[in-house]
Amino acid sequence: MEFSSKLLENAVSEMSQLPGVGKRTALRLVLHLLRQPEHQTVQLAEALSKVRAEINFCKSCHNISDKEICEICENPHRNEELICVVEDIRDVMAIENTSSFRGLYHVLGGKISPMDGIGPQDLNITSLVEKVKLGKVKELIFAMSPTMEGDTTNFYIFKQIQDYNIKTSTIARGVAAGNELEYTDEITLGRSIVDRIPFEASLKL
Amino acid sequence: MEFSSKLLENAVSEMSQLPGVGKRTALRLVLHLLRQPEHQTVQLAEALSKVRAEINFCKSCHNISDKEICEICENPHRNEELICVVEDIRDVMAIENTSSFRGLYHVLGGKISPMDGIGPQDLNITSLVEKVKLGKVKELIFAMSPTMEGDTTNFYIFKQIQDYNIKTSTIARGVAAGNELEYTDEITLGRSIVDRIPFEASLKL
Repeated sequence: MEFSSKLLENAVSEMSQLPGVGKRTALRLVLHLLRQPEHQTVQLAEALSKVRAEINFCKSCHNISDKEICEICENPHRNEELICVVEDIRDVMAIENTSSFRGLYHVLGGKISPMDGIGPQDLNITSLVEKVKLGKVKELIFAMSPTMEGDTTNFYIFKQIQDYNIKTSTIARGVAAGNELEYTDEITLGRSIVDRIPFEASLKL
Repeated sequence: MEFSSKLLENAVSEMSQLPGVGKRTALRLVLHLLRQPEHQTVQLAEALSKVRAEINFCKSCHNISDKEICEICENPHRNEELICVVEDIRDVMAIENTSSFRGLYHVLGGKISPMDGIGPQDLNITSLVEKVKLGKVKELIFAMSPTMEGDTTNFYIFKQIQDYNIKTSTIARGVAAGNELEYTDEITLGRSIVDRIPFEASLKL
């Protein structure tokens, strides 16, 4: 791509560093900004610089937070004996959206993935084990995505804490609400039969 | 979407102003930046602010340029009697890529589209008519996209300049290289038969 302006070329090249944004999309986005009032670009640039420079992670659960301790960890109405272990902040947002969980979270910041060079030392696992050692936590819920890496991460943490007197659970895997059995993959369908629950229990949800 | 951080919420909201970027994508992009070294975000923010603040349009053809007159208009080896009228800078880049055109461009900055509230006065049409009036230009090539709005814009400009002694042409419409006739739409195929060219002429390309 030949650009008629160095400034434009530079902006497009920086924009195309973002995941899923190619040169063409980057050009489209930059040209869009050029057509908008200047304050929109200024605000975007400032918001990005600011979030990157001043971002803070909760000292306790590693969730993104503007304060030392995030609002969830600080909330006295939440059950601190129950900790939900998730991969990243988007999972916290997804679970919070369900309004079904009143415990605390622990954000690992990724999952063990040797293919991507991510080992246990790159994740917030030590601080989780420390929490368990303190003895206040009664149950850990593993809420990683049901993938090979997610399962590996769950198992690694389980090994680290199995000697402590603590309950561990994993989120249920089964047929999603509204899905047709016919189109559900065999692994999910198989597990949903093995992990079946009493019908009365299902009525409570 | 509930955010645990105002800074993050702000960055995501600014990012999702971009066309085709929803809240989820914006969050993914911002979280990506947070995982990268800080200088990447700084460079992106600076490049965007800079291109928006210092962007310059060629006084002659309205192409984006770092100088008063762009490199194409300035080039003495280009034929200034031949002007290709395009919608925006991306079209200039696309045509330049073909290396098939040695004339100059005129960037309208859009197309007449009453549905979007864009009339002739919003485009760089007056300066094009002025160029024609000066008498140096021998031919205008209309290279707008073959849509209703493109055709309307072509026709509007044609009306403005038809009293001057100037040739006008439009880029050929026909079956694209490598395309199967069977899958070509009827309008294109029909025009390609009406606008057929001598076989010997086609051998020269």
